[in-house]
This record gives sequence, C-alpha cells and structure tokens, in this order.
Amino acid sequence: MKARVTVMLKKGVLDPQGQAIAHALGALGFEGVGEVRQGKVIEIELDESNAARAEATVRRMAEELLANTVIETYRVEILPDEAG
Amino acid sequence: MKARVTVMLKKGVLDPQGQAIAHALGALGFEGVGEVRQGKVIEIELDESNAARAEATVRRMAEELLANTVIETYRVEILPDEAG
Repeated sequence: MKARVTVMLKKGVLDPQGQAIAHALGALGFEGVGEVRQGKVIEIELDESNAARAEATVRRMAEELLANTVIETYRVEILPDEAG
Repeated sequence: MKARVTVMLKKGVLDPQGQAIAHALGALGFEGVGEVRQGKVIEIELDESNAARAEATVRRMAEELLANTVIETYRVEILPDEAG
C-alpha cells in the first residue's frame, strides 16, 4: 500500500519559497498570480494491506518526523496500489 | 481559482531525501517501510475563473519554471475555490 503525505506551512507562516516562485512567475510574464505556497509531498510504500492501519501508521510518521506541527499542517492520503 | 502542482523526481532518478526519510523512519521503529520518494507541491492562487484556461496556464508555469522535466514529472490539479 502506498501513502502520500502533503506538508504545507500553516496559513500566516511566512513562505519565502512561495514568494520567490510568485516573483519569478511575474518576471516570466505570467499575470494574475496571487498567493503562492510551497510545500512538500512524501510518498511512502508500506508493507500493510489494511488501509485504516496504514493511515494510522502514516499519521504517526507525520507527527513524529515528516511535519513540524508547530508551523506546518499535513494531509495523509492512502493511494490505490497502482497509482503512480 | 487555485491550482496545485505536484513535482516528483522521475522513477529511476536517485532521491536522497526520500532515502534519508526511509532511514529515519526505520530508526524511529517504523517497520515495513519500502521506497520513500520526496517531492514538492506548489499551490497557486490564480485570477482566472475558467478551469481549462487555468490548467493550461499552470501547465506552462510547470514547464517553464516549477519542474525540471529532464528529471522530474509534474501533475496539475485545479482546486475548488474553498479548498485549503
């Protein structure tokens, strides 16, 4: 089973990478670009066939390692096995 | 309208960040962890109400700036306006 964890900075936390992207898009001529936020995504192959247990495990991984929950939020998705 | 671009290293491209996470999860006692891949996600607010046009614009952004298509793949999603 495969899981995807998406980690984003919380609203209100300054995101200089996102600001740099917004600036660069403007410099490339893209118009109408508002706020840009950059986060990270972690895809994990798990040797676990039960989706509920997989999700519980991955949430613990997010809390303990993948996200800094003081400044970041995370979202866990369990993916169908064939998903890329 | 809000768009999300997810950029991952192509299969076969070495992902040291993913390997580091896999190693750290093992050190924390998580078992059954297979391959881990880390990518980035960019959320962009766009002043564009047409979803098809928004997607076309964001694909150009991905090709020109957000992804290095030699070693990375990207996926574009257009999000409902209220989505976080």
